[in-house]
Amino acid sequence: MIYLNNAATSWPKPPEVYKTADKVLRGLSGGAGRGEGALDVGRVVFEARERIASFFGIRESEKLIFTCNATVGINMVLYGLLAPGDHVVLSSMEHNAVARLLYALKHRKGIEYTVVPCAPDGTLDPLEVERALTPSTKLICLVHASNVSGTIMPIEAVGEIASKHGIEFLVDAAQTAGEIPIDVEACHLTLMAITGHKALMGPPGVGALYIKNPEKITPLICGGTGSRSEELAQPDFVPDKFESGTLNTPGIAALAAGVKFIQKFIQEKEIRNVRQRVQTLTQRLIQGLLKYPEVIVYGPLDPDKRTPAVSINIQGISPGEAAAWLAEKYGIATRPGLHCAPLAHATLGTLSTGTLRLSPGYFNTEEEIDTALYAIGEMIGVLRRGQRL
Amino acid sequence: MIYLNNAATSWPKPPEVYKTADKVLRGLSGGAGRGEGALDVGRVVFEARERIASFFGIRESEKLIFTCNATVGINMVLYGLLAPGDHVVLSSMEHNAVARLLYALKHRKGIEYTVVPCAPDGTLDPLEVERALTPSTKLICLVHASNVSGTIMPIEAVGEIASKHGIEFLVDAAQTAGEIPIDVEACHLTLMAITGHKALMGPPGVGALYIKNPEKITPLICGGTGSRSEELAQPDFVPDKFESGTLNTPGIAALAAGVKFIQKFIQEKEIRNVRQRVQTLTQRLIQGLLKYPEVIVYGPLDPDKRTPAVSINIQGISPGEAAAWLAEKYGIATRPGLHCAPLAHATLGTLSTGTLRLSPGYFNTEEEIDTALYAIGEMIGVLRRGQRL
Repeated sequence: MIYLNNAATSWPKPPEVYKTADKVLRGLSGGAGRGEGALDVGRVVFEARERIASFFGIRESEKLIFTCNATVGINMVLYGLLAPGDHVVLSSMEHNAVARLLYALKHRKGIEYTVVPCAPDGTLDPLEVERALTPSTKLICLVHASNVSGTIMPIEAVGEIASKHGIEFLVDAAQTAGEIPIDVEACHLTLMAITGHKALMGPPGVGALYIKNPEKITPLICGGTGSRSEELAQPDFVPDKFESGTLNTPGIAALAAGVKFIQKFIQEKEIRNVRQRVQTLTQRLIQGLLKYPEVIVYGPLDPDKRTPAVSINIQGISPGEAAAWLAEKYGIATRPGLHCAPLAHATLGTLSTGTLRLSPGYFNTEEEIDTALYAIGEMIGVLRRGQRL
Repeated sequence: MIYLNNAATSWPKPPEVYKTADKVLRGLSGGAGRGEGALDVGRVVFEARERIASFFGIRESEKLIFTCNATVGINMVLYGLLAPGDHVVLSSMEHNAVARLLYALKHRKGIEYTVVPCAPDGTLDPLEVERALTPSTKLICLVHASNVSGTIMPIEAVGEIASKHGIEFLVDAAQTAGEIPIDVEACHLTLMAITGHKALMGPPGVGALYIKNPEKITPLICGGTGSRSEELAQPDFVPDKFESGTLNTPGIAALAAGVKFIQKFIQEKEIRNVRQRVQTLTQRLIQGLLKYPEVIVYGPLDPDKRTPAVSINIQGISPGEAAAWLAEKYGIATRPGLHCAPLAHATLGTLSTGTLRLSPGYFNTEEEIDTALYAIGEMIGVLRRGQRL
C-alpha cells in the first residue's frame, strides 16, 4: 500500500511510538505500585508533558493540558471562555471542530461570530482579521493550516493583532504541530489545540491544549483529579483544573515518543524542522499533477506556503470514484470528500464536489509519489479515451 | 509486585488486550486504505461497538457512544440534559465525577440537586430516592458500586422508580462494568457511563456512554464527524451526534478484546459472570482483615453485597503511611486517600482520614491475598510493640 492520507492520520509511526505505547500499557500500575514491571504513572505523564511543552516553547509545562483530541481542546476553550454576547473572529478556512461548535453556541448561548473571507487559494489577509474586530471580540480563532488545501495561515501576524488588542488567540494546529515549528511566545498564541495522531506521529486518542491564561477559562469537563479530593469545587490550578478523569497514559507516553523522534531527527540532520523532508515530496507531487490539464490543484502551489495536504479535482471523475480506483487498482490510500470543512470548500469553490486529497508524510518516498502520479496519469488516459474505469 | 489496586486500573490486562492495541495502532490506516497491513478503521470501531453493546444488552448499538473515560460520559449527560431549574437526585456515595460537576452546574447554571443519605456502610434505601423526587426532578444519578467501600447500590429498584416517574436514570458503572452483569433494559437504565480500564480489562483512555433517548441530550462536544460534512449543524443521529473528532481506535479495539476475554471466560466456565472469581478473593481478604481488632473494614462484609474494593483503616497508622510501608517492604500496591469521593467518605465517617484501599482483581491469587494479610499482620505487630515502622 502507498499511504497518502497522512493529513487524516500519519502512518506508519516511528517504531519507538509503537514500543512506548505497548510498554506503558503493559507496565501500567495505576497507582503507588513499586517493583519489577511497575511504572509510575505520574512520572510518565510529567515527563511527557515536559517534553511536549518544551517542543512548543511552553515554559510552564503545567499549562499544557492533555486531551483526547484537538476537537475536545477547542470545545474546552469555546465553552470555557465565551459568555452570551461575546464575539469571535474566525477565518473561512476553519474545520468543523471550530465551525460547528460556534454555530451551536450561537444558537444555544448567544455567541456572535464573524467569518473573515479568505482568497480562493485559502490565504488570509491579517488586516481583514483586524477589521472584523468589534468591542465585544473576545477571541480570534485560526487554523494554522487548512486540512483541505494545505494553505498556511499568517499566525504570527494575526497573533500580533490579537496581542495588540488584548484578545485571546486560539490556533488550531491539528495539521501543523510536529511539522511546522511553533513557538507559542513568538507567535503570541494564548491558546493552541493540537492532536497527537498526525504530524506529531503519536497514536489516535490523544491531544493537548495550551492555555496561557488558565484563569480566564472555566473548566468544561469537571470530575475527579486526584487532588484536593475533599473539595467539591474543581481545583483552580493547572493542569488539574482541566484534566478530570483517567488520562490516556499509554497514548500520552507514545505521543512524547513521537515528539522525541522528531527532535532527534532535527538534531541529527542539523535542520530547523522535519518539514524539509515532506516539502520535497509535496513539490514533486504538485509539479507532477500540474502536467495534466485535467487536474485542478487547490491552495498555494509553492510548497513553502502550504502543508503536504494536496487537494485536487480531476475533470470527468468524482473524488470518490477516483479514490476508489486508486485504492483498488494501485493500492494507493487517499481521501475523497469534504474533510469536515464546508467553510473551506465554500472558499475554494468545491462545496458541491469535495476534493480528492493526497497527503504525503514523513515515511513516504519519491518512488511512491511517482507511482501515484503514474496511476493518476493512467486514470486520466482512460478518461481521455472515453473508456470506463 | 502484588497488585491490589484494580479499582483504580486493572492490571495486568489479558494478553489479547495488549496484542489488539498494538495491532490496531500498527495497522491503522486512517482512511480508505486497502492492502497488506491496512485496517478499516470504520470496521474496527463498528465491531467493537457491536460487541460491547451486546455485552450490556443494548440492542441498538449506535446508542453506545465511545468516550475517553467515564467522567467525560457523565459530563456529556449532565450538560446535555439539564436546564436551569432542573433537579437531580443523587446518593451520598457518588464519585467527584458526578459531585463536582453538579456542584459546578448548580453555581453556573442554576441546577438543583438533592443528596440522598446512605447508611454508614454505604447502602442506599431506594425509597429514600423516591421521597427525594420533586416535580422538577429530571435525572436520578447513581453509582453502581462505591469506589471507596465497594457497596453495591440497588440499581434495579431505583431504575423501577425512575421508570415509574418517567425520569432519566444515569448509572455510573465505572466500578462494576465487566464484573457485575448489567442489562440496561432489565435495570431500566436510560443512561450508563462506563470506563474501559477497570473490570472491562481495557486500556486507560477509553470509555463509553449508553444513551437510550438520544433526542433528549444536546451534544456537548461538537465538531467534525465525517458525516454530513456540508452542514454546520451537528448531526442529529447517533453515534455521530456525540462522537466528534478522532476516536481512540486502538483503545476501542483493545476494550472490545477485554470484553471478548470476559465473554470467553464466562462461556468456558459456564457461569453467569466473572464475579465469582474475584468474590472468593474478596471474602478471603475481608475475613483475614477482621482477625485484627485494630482494623476497621468499611462497607458490607458480605461479598455478595460489594465489589472487591475493600477500604480499611488501621489503628495507629495513617492510610498513606500504611500504603508506603506495604509498597516498600512487601512490594504490595494499594491506594491510600480519598479516592476522589468526599461524599462517600463523609457517609462512611472517614473524611478526615481517608482510607487504605485494597482491591483485588481477576489476575490475583489466593497466595497474594495471604501475603498481603501477612504483611498487614506484621505491620500491626510492630505497631502493637510500639516500635517504629
